[in-house]
Amino acid sequence: MKRGLFISFEGGDGSGKSTQIRKLCDFLSENGYDYILSREPGGTSIGEQIRQIILDPENSEMDYLTEAYLYAASRAQHVSQVIRPALESGKIVVCDRFLDSSIAYQGYARGLGACVEDINSYAVGDCLPDITFLLKVSPETGKARRSSREEDRIENEQLDFHQRVFNGYEKIEENSHGRVIGIDASMDIDTIFGIIRTVIEERL
Amino acid sequence: MKRGLFISFEGGDGSGKSTQIRKLCDFLSENGYDYILSREPGGTSIGEQIRQIILDPENSEMDYLTEAYLYAASRAQHVSQVIRPALESGKIVVCDRFLDSSIAYQGYARGLGACVEDINSYAVGDCLPDITFLLKVSPETGKARRSSREEDRIENEQLDFHQRVFNGYEKIEENSHGRVIGIDASMDIDTIFGIIRTVIEERL
Repeated sequence: MKRGLFISFEGGDGSGKSTQIRKLCDFLSENGYDYILSREPGGTSIGEQIRQIILDPENSEMDYLTEAYLYAASRAQHVSQVIRPALESGKIVVCDRFLDSSIAYQGYARGLGACVEDINSYAVGDCLPDITFLLKVSPETGKARRSSREEDRIENEQLDFHQRVFNGYEKIEENSHGRVIGIDASMDIDTIFGIIRTVIEERL
Repeated sequence: MKRGLFISFEGGDGSGKSTQIRKLCDFLSENGYDYILSREPGGTSIGEQIRQIILDPENSEMDYLTEAYLYAASRAQHVSQVIRPALESGKIVVCDRFLDSSIAYQGYARGLGACVEDINSYAVGDCLPDITFLLKVSPETGKARRSSREEDRIENEQLDFHQRVFNGYEKIEENSHGRVIGIDASMDIDTIFGIIRTVIEERL
């Protein structure tokens, strides 16, 4: 069966993912590729309802395990309803965050460890990204960049939390056998996108 | 550490759980026992938000795995915020549905199998009911009993679904090493409660 290409973007909050995703989608459109853009948590009607619970600053008493399960619930719906059908029909899927976010945020930064991968294994199955762009920005720079907008419950965490996220992502990159491509996100937008475009052109 | 008693009620929709739970709570109150009453899905503010997503008839496209994860998310919050602290302070916990519901509904009736227990293992840990009353009513009788109220997304399933739930509960009872006490819920209310009271009095 012909299968599309699954591209995910990862990185701390304020790492510039949205900008690069927009540039990639423009590039794919201009070159006539059939793609869908999605995001986590969310990506489906049910996922967006779950997203609201996760990110609501009022839900400050949320247990870390509850948080991990909610992300997995959103992801199960996303994979079965959107990502898997798109890939099976040969489309390119561009996704703002996927499983690596759960491993970095809940596994490493919240300290839940390997149970996050175990919990998510049923949601994801064999539906894993082919390429993951990890935009690396220091927690301080990330915070400064997103200071202009209102922060959600996760963004609102302290700097040491975001440092643990950063360190977690570095470990994920090390263990990814080349799937995760780390990019210094302090470079200018066009330089970063040049790297992304080169990688994508090689794979299309 | 002194530990309270964890009592759960299980059974198909329309099995009369609510009536028996009310009678048990009256009995505990009259005899001066310190107890809390809770329910799943729900039991906490975050759990009630999750409950709304699960039971909303509009969410008909919900993947079975998503459903299982949402129940686990609600349960993780419930255990950490309500059940475990109550038990550790020596209280009796009376709970309308717990893990067995996920095993019967998602594991057996939805056909997800053993992954439901695996997914839930982190949410529950060692916090399992000491006694579970399983009110057994045929799917036909259950449906007739609840016909007077509006049905949620799960109640609204076909009779063969509720038959699989019934069969699943029978298997859970068989494998429970005496924890699950099955009661024929076609008997009259006071006869059923007489059985429940006898069991509880022996354990208090």
